[in-house]
Amino acid sequence: MHESFQPVDAALVPRFAGVATFMRLPLVASAEGLDIALYGVPWDGGTTNRAGARHGPREVRNQSSLVRRVHHVSGTEPFSLARVADIGDLSVNPIDLKDGLARIEAGVAAIAAAGAIPLGIGGDHLVTLPVLRAVARARPVGLIHFDAHSDTNDTYFGDNRYTHGTPFRRAVEEGLIDPRRTVQIGIRGSIYDPAEHDWARAQGMRVVYMEEFVARGPLEIMAEARRIVGDAPTYVSFDIDSIDPSMAPGTGTPEIGGFSTREAQQMVRLLDGVAIVGADVVEVAPPFDVAGLTALAGATMAFELLCVIARSLAARRRAGGLPGEP
Amino acid sequence: MHESFQPVDAALVPRFAGVATFMRLPLVASAEGLDIALYGVPWDGGTTNRAGARHGPREVRNQSSLVRRVHHVSGTEPFSLARVADIGDLSVNPIDLKDGLARIEAGVAAIAAAGAIPLGIGGDHLVTLPVLRAVARARPVGLIHFDAHSDTNDTYFGDNRYTHGTPFRRAVEEGLIDPRRTVQIGIRGSIYDPAEHDWARAQGMRVVYMEEFVARGPLEIMAEARRIVGDAPTYVSFDIDSIDPSMAPGTGTPEIGGFSTREAQQMVRLLDGVAIVGADVVEVAPPFDVAGLTALAGATMAFELLCVIARSLAARRRAGGLPGEP
Amino acid sequence: MHESFQPVDAALVPRFAGVATFMRLPLVASAEGLDIALYGVPWDGGTTNRAGARHGPREVRNQSSLVRRVHHVSGTEPFSLARVADIGDLSVNPIDLKDGLARIEAGVAAIAAAGAIPLGIGGDHLVTLPVLRAVARARPVGLIHFDAHSDTNDTYFGDNRYTHGTPFRRAVEEGLIDPRRTVQIGIRGSIYDPAEHDWARAQGMRVVYMEEFVARGPLEIMAEARRIVGDAPTYVSFDIDSIDPSMAPGTGTPEIGGFSTREAQQMVRLLDGVAIVGADVVEVAPPFDVAGLTALAGATMAFELLCVIARSLAARRRAGGLPGEP
Amino acid sequence: MHESFQPVDAALVPRFAGVATFMRLPLVASAEGLDIALYGVPWDGGTTNRAGARHGPREVRNQSSLVRRVHHVSGTEPFSLARVADIGDLSVNPIDLKDGLARIEAGVAAIAAAGAIPLGIGGDHLVTLPVLRAVARARPVGLIHFDAHSDTNDTYFGDNRYTHGTPFRRAVEEGLIDPRRTVQIGIRGSIYDPAEHDWARAQGMRVVYMEEFVARGPLEIMAEARRIVGDAPTYVSFDIDSIDPSMAPGTGTPEIGGFSTREAQQMVRLLDGVAIVGADVVEVAPPFDVAGLTALAGATMAFELLCVIARSLAARRRAGGLPGEP
Amino acid sequence: MHESFQPVDAALVPRFAGVATFMRLPLVASAEGLDIALYGVPWDGGTTNRAGARHGPREVRNQSSLVRRVHHVSGTEPFSLARVADIGDLSVNPIDLKDGLARIEAGVAAIAAAGAIPLGIGGDHLVTLPVLRAVARARPVGLIHFDAHSDTNDTYFGDNRYTHGTPFRRAVEEGLIDPRRTVQIGIRGSIYDPAEHDWARAQGMRVVYMEEFVARGPLEIMAEARRIVGDAPTYVSFDIDSIDPSMAPGTGTPEIGGFSTREAQQMVRLLDGVAIVGADVVEVAPPFDVAGLTALAGATMAFELLCVIARSLAARRRAGGLPGEP
Amino acid sequence: MHESFQPVDAALVPRFAGVATFMRLPLVASAEGLDIALYGVPWDGGTTNRAGARHGPREVRNQSSLVRRVHHVSGTEPFSLARVADIGDLSVNPIDLKDGLARIEAGVAAIAAAGAIPLGIGGDHLVTLPVLRAVARARPVGLIHFDAHSDTNDTYFGDNRYTHGTPFRRAVEEGLIDPRRTVQIGIRGSIYDPAEHDWARAQGMRVVYMEEFVARGPLEIMAEARRIVGDAPTYVSFDIDSIDPSMAPGTGTPEIGGFSTREAQQMVRLLDGVAIVGADVVEVAPPFDVAGLTALAGATMAFELLCVIARSLAARRRAGGLPGEP
Repeated sequence: MHESFQPVDAALVPRFAGVATFMRLPLVASAEGLDIALYGVPWDGGTTNRAGARHGPREVRNQSSLVRRVHHVSGTEPFSLARVADIGDLSVNPIDLKDGLARIEAGVAAIAAAGAIPLGIGGDHLVTLPVLRAVARARPVGLIHFDAHSDTNDTYFGDNRYTHGTPFRRAVEEGLIDPRRTVQIGIRGSIYDPAEHDWARAQGMRVVYMEEFVARGPLEIMAEARRIVGDAPTYVSFDIDSIDPSMAPGTGTPEIGGFSTREAQQMVRLLDGVAIVGADVVEVAPPFDVAGLTALAGATMAFELLCVIARSLAARRRAGGLPGEP
Repeated sequence: MHESFQPVDAALVPRFAGVATFMRLPLVASAEGLDIALYGVPWDGGTTNRAGARHGPREVRNQSSLVRRVHHVSGTEPFSLARVADIGDLSVNPIDLKDGLARIEAGVAAIAAAGAIPLGIGGDHLVTLPVLRAVARARPVGLIHFDAHSDTNDTYFGDNRYTHGTPFRRAVEEGLIDPRRTVQIGIRGSIYDPAEHDWARAQGMRVVYMEEFVARGPLEIMAEARRIVGDAPTYVSFDIDSIDPSMAPGTGTPEIGGFSTREAQQMVRLLDGVAIVGADVVEVAPPFDVAGLTALAGATMAFELLCVIARSLAARRRAGGLPGEP
Repeated sequence: MHESFQPVDAALVPRFAGVATFMRLPLVASAEGLDIALYGVPWDGGTTNRAGARHGPREVRNQSSLVRRVHHVSGTEPFSLARVADIGDLSVNPIDLKDGLARIEAGVAAIAAAGAIPLGIGGDHLVTLPVLRAVARARPVGLIHFDAHSDTNDTYFGDNRYTHGTPFRRAVEEGLIDPRRTVQIGIRGSIYDPAEHDWARAQGMRVVYMEEFVARGPLEIMAEARRIVGDAPTYVSFDIDSIDPSMAPGTGTPEIGGFSTREAQQMVRLLDGVAIVGADVVEVAPPFDVAGLTALAGATMAFELLCVIARSLAARRRAGGLPGEP
Repeated sequence: MHESFQPVDAALVPRFAGVATFMRLPLVASAEGLDIALYGVPWDGGTTNRAGARHGPREVRNQSSLVRRVHHVSGTEPFSLARVADIGDLSVNPIDLKDGLARIEAGVAAIAAAGAIPLGIGGDHLVTLPVLRAVARARPVGLIHFDAHSDTNDTYFGDNRYTHGTPFRRAVEEGLIDPRRTVQIGIRGSIYDPAEHDWARAQGMRVVYMEEFVARGPLEIMAEARRIVGDAPTYVSFDIDSIDPSMAPGTGTPEIGGFSTREAQQMVRLLDGVAIVGADVVEVAPPFDVAGLTALAGATMAFELLCVIARSLAARRRAGGLPGEP
Repeated sequence: MHESFQPVDAALVPRFAGVATFMRLPLVASAEGLDIALYGVPWDGGTTNRAGARHGPREVRNQSSLVRRVHHVSGTEPFSLARVADIGDLSVNPIDLKDGLARIEAGVAAIAAAGAIPLGIGGDHLVTLPVLRAVARARPVGLIHFDAHSDTNDTYFGDNRYTHGTPFRRAVEEGLIDPRRTVQIGIRGSIYDPAEHDWARAQGMRVVYMEEFVARGPLEIMAEARRIVGDAPTYVSFDIDSIDPSMAPGTGTPEIGGFSTREAQQMVRLLDGVAIVGADVVEVAPPFDVAGLTALAGATMAFELLCVIARSLAARRRAGGLPGEP
Repeated sequence: MHESFQPVDAALVPRFAGVATFMRLPLVASAEGLDIALYGVPWDGGTTNRAGARHGPREVRNQSSLVRRVHHVSGTEPFSLARVADIGDLSVNPIDLKDGLARIEAGVAAIAAAGAIPLGIGGDHLVTLPVLRAVARARPVGLIHFDAHSDTNDTYFGDNRYTHGTPFRRAVEEGLIDPRRTVQIGIRGSIYDPAEHDWARAQGMRVVYMEEFVARGPLEIMAEARRIVGDAPTYVSFDIDSIDPSMAPGTGTPEIGGFSTREAQQMVRLLDGVAIVGADVVEVAPPFDVAGLTALAGATMAFELLCVIARSLAARRRAGGLPGEP
């Protein structure tokens, strides 16, 4: 047990008490000395429709007071397996997109330099691009991407190349993700063009529509996803709009017919064993939320991710390092 | 492509910009020259409990800004297959029920006279009665009816025969729908009388309880529904309260245990090939909605209906007219 | 038919009219002469996090105006099978926990003394402890318990033994429930300690995690539940947080990944034939509710419970009493 | 003290406990034996825009649990001065306007026949017309009318003469109110026609715009109002939209720039001594309310009215009857 | 009367019917042929804290259905005095600040080129900068500015010079407003630096704190404001956050202690006679609004501004042009 | 300037970024080294009706991100005048009233022992009793008390002596406040008993009804209040329900007709020079709040209090200590 990195105990201090940090963990100044760094990215500069994800980290922190220490199914105790803390929010810029991206990249680069795995709470999905720039500097990573949207469009509003609808096109172009080790799950909703997902598929990305997910089920889909990413370093990006709007209304681009939270939890648990080098939960937009449902879903999905990352880390330690890493 | 009847492109003009029309389509003065007319019926004069569906069209228009041009599963491009526009709201009367019904019938009759298929956004379910009077003047039509309630009661509050609980009894009595070509899907919730659905069944209507739907699944139920209506002209009425209240809280008579939006979408897609002569989405009541969920569900279901109607229309054109029509 | 204990007819008096009582039943002064007494417990003195269940009875009454007379699947007419009325709220004490528990026990004891089966609307889950003290005075009862949480913790905030996280541990210790005739269904969410549910299991309680429920399905789980409680007197406690937060957001301790209302209804219907000696629906917390969803779910689940109780009572009458009762 | 007509004591039974009646008073079957009858009119059949006032009585009952027994300024104890109870809601018809008006008139006529002063909670403002038909059968009454709107239009949507925008024109035409003994206070907001208020003024009605009220103040305005109605029988109608939308958002036709609740309370207190033969609080529309603010304002204004009515009644008793009455 | 530019009549078509345009006016393609052009600017790219004003125009349109044709106090009939229409929303860019500013300037320049007075609905307050660039090209204008904030800061987040906290500093620097003909009214709330307003005052701007307004009253303050701007061309900018958050909660930077809507209306009415060359209502942020209160306040203030502009225009016509204009 | 105790600068770090502390101040472990300690009391164990104030500190922290460094009227820079920080929340017990009171007293005693002035954010009003026990151990203090309620009742629900309706009776009985140096301002709303405030007055407390406040105005009332408390040590307690429910809806016991925030700010500013030994803002109940209005009002009132305390402290330093203190 890492005595100094334990959540506040709700049987001693009520959940509503105290300044809200992620999962009631200690708030520390940097990722130094951590295995996993929980950080916020209060930024939605890439949002093309309904902004609000800038407020995501604070409300996810608030609702995450409901999270406890141990995973009831796997028995994972992430705070015993790894040193985990809340390092606060990255520096951002709400009115300058380019500067915003640069600040986020720098923030995550510092986490990576400290040797910690970054687990971020967005923020809109464009956030994942600078995160990948920091995490995948050395080589492209695999990507498991839960989302209602492929986010592989090219430009918006003229020739603007950086929006929350374009990060994964940019990430492929910049060599940050390996498209043949990329899988997108939960894609649905009307599209602009019949060829909208052709680019992604042409790069070798696997696009799993919601309808295929419903037909084949989470076990089969996740088995395929794990085959796709293999044992090499992989990033996991969870867009909260992959979940149904009834369960996650507080998001910028809702699409009906989404995952149930039960399905989402099951899928993330099936990531067990994947060599996760970073992960995020994005697009929680509190101004559109009701009753904190979306922030609670985001906080719980972050806990699910934390558990598989902590297990992976512990396994890696036992095994002597991550395949493909020095 | 019908250049003049295309939605505004969200990659050029943000979704939140501009006056809200259905699916960001052009707003035109009448159905002349259209294949499919999207129209609103801001009227809830038949509502026996919680009014508010009068505000439905405006909020469905608002949320429908999230709809795009192409169906991601079927690849249908409804705005290329057919000339579609928003013709605004029909004239209504909020304080005189009989006059209200007459105005609605006249409005839809004008759409039909223009040769367009009416796709309406209610409004409470009594709206469907005058719509059927306009659409089924020549002969009874088949009916596929998604709803939590059978809406085949006889009278309310004395001998009042026209409420949103009675339209389909009246429609049978008036010879507007053929009860043997009628199927109601999703019926559930406590009832007034053990014999409440006997009248419907005695007429030959097929009443599918939610429990039967859960047991048999959408594929089997919709196969039966298609057998029931056959190839002859058929009207489709989608009451938003067929969907679960968590996904569509903004409605007058919610019943727990409803369809998921995923199931609803799947069922409407399975209408492909049905000879739809008109359709509606009713009972979206914004004053009871949260976060626009119900209006978004209504807008998306309208898009799903639009896609099958446009395909049917295109197929009909290729085949040289609708079976049973001159 | 018990003419004097019938709900107001919504086809005569609109649902929004009149003072709200449970299911629009007569409000009576006591349980005398009743077979089943619907009562409220406006008390949340055991709540460790978000209070508000004290307001539950009033809002459940309000939303229960949507309930009708007959169960559409089983055809049960509870108000014909049994004399049922709303006896109002029990006396409570919002600022003295011990006095609160004593008042609740006394209130339910009076119901039991009148020979009526108590069907309570909470209130937080600690309410069930004094209810069991009243109902299970003579002998331990079986328990079917739907909940996201096991509620078998020992103490909170020092050595406080009475919170809504401890009632079933206390009930076992006090000999009110037979742990080998107890089943908990729907348990999920992160826990404090890997051994959190060991105490319950060590007593012989059957703890069904949500994940097992998803894997095996409601039919199999409820068959097991019925085997566990057998034919002897059984109490049914339905914590609304067993239902998913999207369908029941208004509760103190939401956990994502819960039952759908469809599943919850199916399970309660499968209680048919169980010798129910009392039941409750707890943890509806209106200050956290949206659009009355949770209160509506609570009211409908109470109606589902009422139907199985009324049927059980009718069957018992025909059979000449309850097994194990004089 | 009328022992049997006292509110539940909140120092014994918490405010959130029990079935909600007006001011926690006993619920009785009729006005027989009462001095003042509190009744609800759950009806909004005259509403031309946003319906919802049908839900007013229930929510006003709910919020009125916050009202206590004694007026803190005047020291009035209305429940000691008079026998007051909640007689429930009048029979209404949500889908037949004419029948609705007839039922309301009959309901209030029964109250009047029992010798009680009717104090009603609406319902939309058209409700006041049938109330006046019952209360002013014998002779026209004076009227003190607080409202943002004059409600003296002629017709809507063709030649419909009965809407919540026309009751006081009808009341003058039917000889129910004496226009020279009528004062309207708080009128404001844009109008349809420069001559909109000319008809009212031509009849002799005094129309006090909000701007005049602001300039002259409540003391002066109410002194004039009392001069206008004099000592003869007078009805008081309080439209909640006279209050500013920030303090009473839950209403159908909000107009910014309204009374503060402080001003409204002060004005009603200055009615002391007026020979009030009936009063109402109308247009509380809960579906548009936030946090119960409007229902709380409605409940408190009803208490203020109750206090002046009870004092007037007590004074009248001492004086031997009402001037102008037999 | 300009027959072709009249609002829909609510006595014929209910307020909730039809596509929502500003004040139910005709929607036209451009400002050609108009005297006053109502336009939306769905853009909040300058917002430093809570975004959402991009959604302002649509919701102000929605709530403006409550506005009628005639000002009840002044009797002004703006739609008879001037040709007024809704020209839709300007082109914007939600993710590129500089491009956004350029598009807005171009849009308003087109209005000005058509000879119409622009009356804009924002959008955040940075919008006023490009508007002034279009309106004040020829010469600096006077400014009457209602706001909680001076918006004369220099930079944010590094050296970013364009945010909604800086427009009026930029406008002075660019020679768009004459600081000695500028008055800011309603300024309040904690500040960053004791010298925060020194720059504004040093330029000659008159800064009226809320406290001074309370002490001196609207009549005196507005008399001074009119003296300051004199007879020369003047722009009026109304930030909705000048109004108290209880009456206008839906805004990005609320400050308690604001204007009542009554005061705001009175002040705008006192602009009568000012040579207004353009005006706006900004910072309505619907995601933070409750019950449409802020959008309703915004719509009503826009109507108040429209009335004084239309009167000014009519007077100018009679007098033969605007002082200082060719 | 106390460099280490400065708020985060919003021109560098956006307001929505970072973990929320009071006024974005540093979060420190104890009051050691502070002049003024901002602390939270997440506890509502004394609440007799609507609980929720336990969530107050967290939401006040959240909204207090909108507070800046300098008072715009007085120019006070509290963070330069004094060392101020957020010391987090006191330890509480949500289910044991007596233990809760003891923990709060101990927490504030530690602040006092560190030589800091406690400025607390509640929590319900019973919180003030243990605070006074800590602050007024040595001698009774004066009290300036803003509230809708006198909170001097004796018992509730039997003989329970500790609720949020009784703290000031207990404080007098325990010799914690000097009743002749106590003034209550803003008292209003219906009462239980005509003699309800007699006890307070009999002790020598000055009870200022809202009506007297309206008649005499804030300047006169506060002049009297300052005469009453004189120069000796005084505690200031600000119940948010003294403010009107439209401006502070999120509270347990709202009463219409309250202070405007403008009036409340003015009154607190007039405390300048009072020898404040502690202060609190209580009864902010977020579950009943809308749009954060109440939390924002609470945060701003806390800043107003902070400014007068910091000035008083600075003056006291210059003068060489507090009158009556060693």
